[in-house]
Amino acid sequence: MKLRCKLMDVLSSSPMCGLDPADCLELGVKENDRIRIVGPRGEMTVLMMCSDDFVEVGTLLVSPAILKRIGASDGDMVDVHYSPSPESVRVIRKKMDGLKLDAKEIEAVVNDIYAGSLSNIEVSSWLTSLYINGMDLEEIAAFTNAMVETGDRVPFEKGPIYDFHSLGGVPGNKITPIVVSIVAAAGLILPKTSSRAISSACGTSDFVETFCDIEVTTDRLKEIGESVGGAFVWGGSMNLAPVDDIVIKIEHPLGINPRAQMLASILSKKLAINTNYLLVDIPTGAGTKIPTIEVARDYARDFMDLGEKLGMHIECAITYADQPVGSAIGPNLEARECIRVLEGEEHPASVIEKACECAGILLEMAGYQDGAVKAREILKSGKAHEKFLEIVVAQGGRADLKSSDLKPGDYKVDIISTKAGYVHSINNKDLVAIAKACGSPTDKGAGILLLKKKGQRVEVGDVLFTLYAENEAKLTRARDLAEKYGPVLIEGMLIKRVSAQQFR
Amino acid sequence: MKLRCKLMDVLSSSPMCGLDPADCLELGVKENDRIRIVGPRGEMTVLMMCSDDFVEVGTLLVSPAILKRIGASDGDMVDVHYSPSPESVRVIRKKMDGLKLDAKEIEAVVNDIYAGSLSNIEVSSWLTSLYINGMDLEEIAAFTNAMVETGDRVPFEKGPIYDFHSLGGVPGNKITPIVVSIVAAAGLILPKTSSRAISSACGTSDFVETFCDIEVTTDRLKEIGESVGGAFVWGGSMNLAPVDDIVIKIEHPLGINPRAQMLASILSKKLAINTNYLLVDIPTGAGTKIPTIEVARDYARDFMDLGEKLGMHIECAITYADQPVGSAIGPNLEARECIRVLEGEEHPASVIEKACECAGILLEMAGYQDGAVKAREILKSGKAHEKFLEIVVAQGGRADLKSSDLKPGDYKVDIISTKAGYVHSINNKDLVAIAKACGSPTDKGAGILLLKKKGQRVEVGDVLFTLYAENEAKLTRARDLAEKYGPVLIEGMLIKRVSAQQFR
Repeated sequence: MKLRCKLMDVLSSSPMCGLDPADCLELGVKENDRIRIVGPRGEMTVLMMCSDDFVEVGTLLVSPAILKRIGASDGDMVDVHYSPSPESVRVIRKKMDGLKLDAKEIEAVVNDIYAGSLSNIEVSSWLTSLYINGMDLEEIAAFTNAMVETGDRVPFEKGPIYDFHSLGGVPGNKITPIVVSIVAAAGLILPKTSSRAISSACGTSDFVETFCDIEVTTDRLKEIGESVGGAFVWGGSMNLAPVDDIVIKIEHPLGINPRAQMLASILSKKLAINTNYLLVDIPTGAGTKIPTIEVARDYARDFMDLGEKLGMHIECAITYADQPVGSAIGPNLEARECIRVLEGEEHPASVIEKACECAGILLEMAGYQDGAVKAREILKSGKAHEKFLEIVVAQGGRADLKSSDLKPGDYKVDIISTKAGYVHSINNKDLVAIAKACGSPTDKGAGILLLKKKGQRVEVGDVLFTLYAENEAKLTRARDLAEKYGPVLIEGMLIKRVSAQQFR
Repeated sequence: MKLRCKLMDVLSSSPMCGLDPADCLELGVKENDRIRIVGPRGEMTVLMMCSDDFVEVGTLLVSPAILKRIGASDGDMVDVHYSPSPESVRVIRKKMDGLKLDAKEIEAVVNDIYAGSLSNIEVSSWLTSLYINGMDLEEIAAFTNAMVETGDRVPFEKGPIYDFHSLGGVPGNKITPIVVSIVAAAGLILPKTSSRAISSACGTSDFVETFCDIEVTTDRLKEIGESVGGAFVWGGSMNLAPVDDIVIKIEHPLGINPRAQMLASILSKKLAINTNYLLVDIPTGAGTKIPTIEVARDYARDFMDLGEKLGMHIECAITYADQPVGSAIGPNLEARECIRVLEGEEHPASVIEKACECAGILLEMAGYQDGAVKAREILKSGKAHEKFLEIVVAQGGRADLKSSDLKPGDYKVDIISTKAGYVHSINNKDLVAIAKACGSPTDKGAGILLLKKKGQRVEVGDVLFTLYAENEAKLTRARDLAEKYGPVLIEGMLIKRVSAQQFR
C-alpha cells in the first residue's frame, strides 16, 4: 500500500517507524511485525510500531535513518508491504537452540544487523545467545570475515602491516603513541587505529586528539602509513567493520560482551587494514575485563588459533593490571605523561616498561633479536621522539609540540591521606568513575594524577592523588565521589613485611 | 538536572525518551544509559536515546507512557538523574549464566518489566535466557506468583471456581461457549476469560463478540460468575497479570514462547481469578505448538506439578490437532457453528466430541461419574443451550439469539479440487494465513468453511473449501494464497488402503 512519509520528531540512530491501527489492519500487520518500505533510492525492512494517537491514517511515521536509507524526504509517498521474518531470525533461533552456524548463516545475521532489518529486540537475543551458547573458532572466523565485508578496507600496497591492540580495562594506558613511534622508527609500518572511551575514563583517541587530528579517511591512513610508517588515528572516523558500532549500543545496557563478538569485533577491524602481524595486550587482574590468568590464557589461545584461520600472525602479552599504568588519567594529563616519556623523562617506569615490552615483541615478530632492549635503545636515542613528531605533523599537529603544552584544568583539589601505612590496593573502577565525574574525557583538562601507587609508603597528610577539572561543580562532584569511594586503600603495613617481621 | 518535557510525536506503548548530546554530557550519560525521571506524581527509570537533530538543549523528549506514569504534561519541568542499572539487570545476567533464581530476584525482573524500567533490549535478553536456560518448577511457581501481583484479582466469594484453558495452535477451536454452558448448566462456576487472536486467525473472544459483549470489569465478572455460573469474556478487558501483554510483544518478533514464560503466563491469569480446578487442553500434532505426544506429556506433567505448588488442582487433556476442529474458521462462521451445536445440530462431530470430552473431565473433577456421558446428556437436553442464552444475556446479548443471525461475508469463492482421491492432510498454518488474508478476525464475516476433511473422498470438481470476505480485494488476495499453498492435500488413495490392497 502507498503511504505518505512523515519524519519522526526524533531520535536515535536506529531505524523506527509507526503506522495508524487502521493502516495496520489494511496491511494485515500488528506491532512488532516487519514491513518493507520501498523508496525512490532503496528499500528497507524494519519492525513496525502501531499508535492511534500520533500517526494519521495514510501516513508512515519514519525515523531519519529510514528516510536516508531509502532516499526519500518528509512528505514523499512510499510503498509499504508486509514482510515475513528474514532468514536471519531463523538463524538466531538456531543459535538459541545451541546449534553450529555456517558462514552463510552468520553473514545473513551480520548483514541484516547492518541493514537495520533486525531490531534491538532481535540483536539483543542474538547477543544473549552468543553469550550463552558461544561459537567455535570456525564460526568466529566466519563472523569476523562477515563483519569486515560490511565496511571499508584500507588498501595498503606496501607491507607487511604491524598492529597491536589492548583489550583495555586498565586506566591510564597511554602507551600507544610510544609503541607506534618506536616501531615506526625501526622502519616498520604500524598504522594504529584506536577508539574513544566506551566505558573507560579516556580512550587513546580521546588523549591523542589533544595534540593532533585523529579523523582521517582510509586513503589518508594509507598515505601516512606508507610514507611515515606510523599513525595513531581514530578508527571511528573510517567505516571499518561498522556493524560493531550498532552491536556495542545493545551490549551496553546488558553489560555483556560475548567472547565471539569481542574476538570478531577486534579482528575484523584489523583485517580491514590488512594487518599481517598483530600483538594483543591482555590486561589481567581484579577490576579488568579478564579476572584471572587462566581466562587470559584461554583468550590468548583463541586469538592465536583464530589468527591462523584468518591468515594473520598473532602473539599475545598478558599484562598485570591491578592498578593504572603510570600516574595520569584524563586527556591532557595522559598526553603530557606520554610525550614526556618520548622526550626522555625516565618516569613513570610502568609506562616505559609496558611500552618497550610491547614494542619489543613487535620488533621480534619482524625478526629483531632482543626486541625490548632494541625498543629501549630507540626510545633513549631520541629516534622514537623524532618519529613521533613526524607522525604528529602528518596528522595535522605542530612540529614543535612539547609536553608542557598540555595543561590540566584550572580547578584542582588534593586528596589527602588520613592514615599512615602502605598503599595496599588501588581500585581501577572507582578511579574511572571519579575521573569521569571530573569531566573526562570530554573536558580535556579533567582527570586524576596519582601521587602514590601500590606498595608505596604514605604518611598522614600526604597527597594520595590530585583531581583536576574545568569547572568547580564537576570538581566538587568528583571530590565527593573520591571521599565516598576511597579508591586508594592504605594498610598498616604491607602483607609481605608482616611475614618478614614474624620470622625475624 | 532540570529539563523541560516535550511530548514525543509518537509511538508505541513502551516508554521512550531522548536527550540532546550536550545534556547527556552534562548528566554524564550516553545512549542506552538509564535515567530516572522524577515528575509531580511519580518517577520512572528508562533507557535514554541521544540525538542532536531532534531534541533541543534543555528539553527531555518523552513518550506519552512516561508522562502518564510520572503525572506530568507537555512543557512541565522535571528532574532527571543518571541511574545505574537496576538489580533486575543483574538477575537477567544470572539467568544468562544458567543459575537458579530465588523468588525475590524473579519478582524484581517482573516488576521492572511492568514498570517500564527494563527496555526491549533487556526483556529480549531475559526471554532468550529463559528459552535457553529455562527455569525449574520452583522458579516458575515464583514467576507465576510475581506475575499475579502486578495485576488485579477477581474477588470471588463463592466457589470452587472451575476453569479450562487450551494451549491453542489449532484453528476452528470454537468449543469454549459449549463447554462453559454445559458445566454451568450442571451448577458449577466457570468464569472463562479468553483471548483475542495473537498469531491465529480467530481467538475465542474474536468470535464471541459477534453475539454479546466481551469487555467486563473484575466486579462484573464476579457478579456474572456467582449468579449465572458461567461467562466467556475477554481477559484483556481486565488487568489480570498485565506484564504478559508487554512480554508477548517481544516474543512475537523472536518467534519464541519459552516454556517458563508460557506456564507462568497461563497460570497467573488463572490464579488471578482464584481458580481451584483447571483443565488444560494440549492440542498436539504437526503444525501446532506441541509437535509430539512426548512433548505434550512433559507439559502435562509440568502443569500438574506446578498446580500442586500453586494450590490449584490441574488435569490435562492431550488432544490430536492435525486438522481444524469442525468446519468453520473466522468470527461469524465459528459463532454460527458453535451456536448450531448448542441448538441441537449433530454436526460437526469433532466439535461436539471435543466439547463434551472437556466438559466431562471438568464434571468428573467436581465429583460426577462418567462426565462425558453426563455432558452429552446436558447438551442434548437443551439445558446447555438455555444456560448459554442466560450467559449471553448477562453479557449484554439478545435472549432470542439464533445461529442463523450470524452471517458470513457477501464475497465468496469456492476452491475446487482438480484431483480425485482422499484428503491426506490439511495444513493448519496455511489455513490460518488464508483466513487472515480473507480479513479474519477483524472483518467478522471473513473466514473459511471446510467442506472436506481428512480421510474423506474427493472427486474432480468437488468444493474443498469456501472462502468468505467482506470485500473483493481481500477475497482475491486470499484466493491467490489458497492456490499458492494448496492447504488440503489429496492423495490417490489412503495409505491404509495401500496395505490392505497389497495383502489382498
